[in-house]
Amino acid sequence: MSKPSVQVIAIGNAIVDVMAPCEDELIERFGMTRGGMTLIDTDRAHELYEAMGPAREISGGSAANTLAGLAALGSSCAFIGQVADDQLGEVFAHDIRAGGIRFDVAPRAGDPPTARCLIFVTPDGQRTMNTFLGASQFLPPAALDEAAIADAEVLYLEGYLWDPEEPRAAMRRAIGAARNAGRKVAFTLSDAFVIQRHGADFRAMIETGDIDILFANHIELAALTGHDDFHAGIDALKDKVPLLVVTRSEQGAVAATGGELFEVPAEPVERVVDTTGAGDLFAAGFLHGHVNGRPVAECLRLGAICAAEVISHYGARPEADLKALAAARLGRG
Amino acid sequence: MSKPSVQVIAIGNAIVDVMAPCEDELIERFGMTRGGMTLIDTDRAHELYEAMGPAREISGGSAANTLAGLAALGSSCAFIGQVADDQLGEVFAHDIRAGGIRFDVAPRAGDPPTARCLIFVTPDGQRTMNTFLGASQFLPPAALDEAAIADAEVLYLEGYLWDPEEPRAAMRRAIGAARNAGRKVAFTLSDAFVIQRHGADFRAMIETGDIDILFANHIELAALTGHDDFHAGIDALKDKVPLLVVTRSEQGAVAATGGELFEVPAEPVERVVDTTGAGDLFAAGFLHGHVNGRPVAECLRLGAICAAEVISHYGARPEADLKALAAARLGRG
Repeated sequence: MSKPSVQVIAIGNAIVDVMAPCEDELIERFGMTRGGMTLIDTDRAHELYEAMGPAREISGGSAANTLAGLAALGSSCAFIGQVADDQLGEVFAHDIRAGGIRFDVAPRAGDPPTARCLIFVTPDGQRTMNTFLGASQFLPPAALDEAAIADAEVLYLEGYLWDPEEPRAAMRRAIGAARNAGRKVAFTLSDAFVIQRHGADFRAMIETGDIDILFANHIELAALTGHDDFHAGIDALKDKVPLLVVTRSEQGAVAATGGELFEVPAEPVERVVDTTGAGDLFAAGFLHGHVNGRPVAECLRLGAICAAEVISHYGARPEADLKALAAARLGRG
Repeated sequence: MSKPSVQVIAIGNAIVDVMAPCEDELIERFGMTRGGMTLIDTDRAHELYEAMGPAREISGGSAANTLAGLAALGSSCAFIGQVADDQLGEVFAHDIRAGGIRFDVAPRAGDPPTARCLIFVTPDGQRTMNTFLGASQFLPPAALDEAAIADAEVLYLEGYLWDPEEPRAAMRRAIGAARNAGRKVAFTLSDAFVIQRHGADFRAMIETGDIDILFANHIELAALTGHDDFHAGIDALKDKVPLLVVTRSEQGAVAATGGELFEVPAEPVERVVDTTGAGDLFAAGFLHGHVNGRPVAECLRLGAICAAEVISHYGARPEADLKALAAARLGRG
């Protein structure tokens, strides 16, 4: 097996987030699922955008956010995802490349436009996401650089993208390419709605040993295992994936591997401004430690540090110098 | 004279800001004018965007920022400016309307795209702006709603927009419409480069009494009057405009009117994050006080409060609840 060309290659949605603060009342008035992610069509996108206050645009997308964190920490990364040939597509492509991430997928001509996510942030910092998938769901087989996938140490897949058909097929092929090359496959469950629709797929992939590293939060763990009790959920999965990483918001996170359980408390945050990207950046910190051979306890700590940074400001991409922050917090500053 | 339909109507650039932090070295490497505003063409825009780190997009434009502040404080406002029929144009239009500002100018079809400003923010919080004017410079005569101008208490004009030909002609007509209706004309000088190119126009307009309220910073004051000494500059102008308002960064601001001079210190700021919009929001606070009949000293204080808010975060539009902030700071909270 040759030396990997990048440490992490990810397949995910190529999304620009459109974010604004809002009062709780608005979430109720428009029947949004508070704290969740809902797919929306053009009409709903117009309706919600009209109701949204003055906003800001910041590149997003779950796996892309994770790569932004990984690259900021110093890991080498590549991204596969589909933008349209429009201004928001340029914004997404610029931001991911400017972060030092390889991104070679050509923009898609014509309609639909680049994906955007309308994110309403309530006064408690909770984010409620409404995603218009646009071009992102039309990731063509040609975009799948199998040589690059076979050449990366870890293939990281975003559960959100399991929902639309073309990307799902692409991800299945990507898993095959990674496995054939003896690489690791990491998967994040993304949201409970994805599990409601595709839980059987995920459980089958876990049973056949296609997933080496599984990321979930406590709600997704419950949805996947059917156990409302956190530790019962961990017990049900821990012997089926080599490395299981479960976050639980302000209660920190847990990793189960090799018959052992590791825990980390949440990193203190002065003020939770916007929780968008918390899970994505936790995965970034954890994976950065993992691909750089750090002990599991340190991987968890890195995840907690990165998640705390991203929820202390608007937007799901890191703003602080993560490398310096991690070194300082780990006592190596 | 009928009751005005809005308190302030403004003509300005319709711009989306593309903002990112950068090291001082980058400003030098690309020969940018630190702290200034430079007009750029498509090639330069590509070159600078390529050199820029991961960014965020926030609606901007000097006069539009001022209206955003005015509307947040509770003044009624309307905006005249030109966007293209593209995604950034939608973003600009959404943000200004979502702020409660009337904006009726139809987007312009075809090239060029909506204006954008590439803003590099150095570690000291200073912003260096590079503006690609795009559609903004093609404000057609038809966009000029003379009835609305005649019906507004104050017409507010942005000096930046004096540079391109079409908007300059539009603004001259707007001044005529406002004067004929007995309304006030407020003008902001925007940047020293505008004065270098159009100082003669501005001096002539001041001599003929076309400007009732003149906003400038200390550098623009020097460029317009030829006096490097601040007070000599004030003395040279104070009897020529009914109300002269000059900001001087961390040294606060001065207003001269009716033979009297009023001063306000800068409002304390915990950390200067990004100075973009400081002058725009000072003008917002001052004008809000002015159109609501507050004493000059309080208008200055409102300006200082709004400027302090906008430099404490990224972006030139207010994030805090300005109305509540102003009430609290003025001791009416």
